[in-house]
Amino acid sequence: MDILKERILCDGSGIGTDVVKVDGFLNHMIDVRLMDLIGKEFASRFADVKVDKILTVEASGIAVACFAAKYFNCVPVVFAKKTAPNTMIEDAYCAEAKSFTKGSISMVRVAKKYICEGENILIIDDFLAHGQAGSALAQIVRMGGAEVAGFGAVIEKKFQGGGDKMREDGIRVESLAIIEKIEDGKIYFSNN
Amino acid sequence: MDILKERILCDGSGIGTDVVKVDGFLNHMIDVRLMDLIGKEFASRFADVKVDKILTVEASGIAVACFAAKYFNCVPVVFAKKTAPNTMIEDAYCAEAKSFTKGSISMVRVAKKYICEGENILIIDDFLAHGQAGSALAQIVRMGGAEVAGFGAVIEKKFQGGGDKMREDGIRVESLAIIEKIEDGKIYFSNN
Repeated sequence: MDILKERILCDGSGIGTDVVKVDGFLNHMIDVRLMDLIGKEFASRFADVKVDKILTVEASGIAVACFAAKYFNCVPVVFAKKTAPNTMIEDAYCAEAKSFTKGSISMVRVAKKYICEGENILIIDDFLAHGQAGSALAQIVRMGGAEVAGFGAVIEKKFQGGGDKMREDGIRVESLAIIEKIEDGKIYFSNN
Repeated sequence: MDILKERILCDGSGIGTDVVKVDGFLNHMIDVRLMDLIGKEFASRFADVKVDKILTVEASGIAVACFAAKYFNCVPVVFAKKTAPNTMIEDAYCAEAKSFTKGSISMVRVAKKYICEGENILIIDDFLAHGQAGSALAQIVRMGGAEVAGFGAVIEKKFQGGGDKMREDGIRVESLAIIEKIEDGKIYFSNN
């Protein structure tokens, strides 16, 4: 997705060899016009797939997932929680996910009633790095007897292997910008 | 906003005397069609106000703020963070907020560069209860030399006093559903 890659190069920055900072339009400040285009692009990439629901994880995945849902006939969006608020009193599916940017291991959880047997659930997230969050979400989908319709990432950091791991796991992965490497703060995209 | 109140009565539930559970369309699963209507309603209520930016706090405020932004000419949305990821390396404005549903005190923070002097910033959140999150966000706006254009809440729990506290502080508050009390699990709306 060229407009996204241009935006990453223009407003984003590489830090060291593995961090991409895109908090000017995706992770802290959100450009809703771009989110809308991103949502549309996911719908076009997964046009041949039946999608009953979209699953993401708080917080940065929410905007992307919501704008994508618009283009999937307004299917419900469920966001996995990283902490359990006192209003979450029912049974939940839990899976472990390591946060690359926060350097911590956390549980992600989804109330059981929001994953229904036989549903086709598209997972959407802002980043696909080591694939920890994505794999945890896929696990949760399967715990509920639902199918993973695919995984859509706004930015995949290919060199961290999460995307390939998910593809090997039989999940169709669509990433809108694939980063091959980061060197001296410069971001190199893959040609795929 | 009648459609919202009906939805709260239909899909939401009161717990004890102070908790409203709306995780079926707002807080865990998101109904994007309703979010769009909510966004439009905020735009109509604040139609006479200049809005340069929308500020919210992760996680449940994000969807609402993004759909509202669409109706404010796609102004940028900034969401305050509750934890500091390792990509947040710059100076931030921080303020303390107590989470009513999580029973904890946390810091909310916004990178200084995303609050600009003289901007009119509309604060949007899913709930207005004790007003802790809203007051923390208002504090951050003022720290940056910007103006609070108003505060928009999807649901105000009037009996917890946060809305009145913010109004006394000179902030224009617009709440789309105002809950007067919760008794035996039954939700009573205010007529305002």
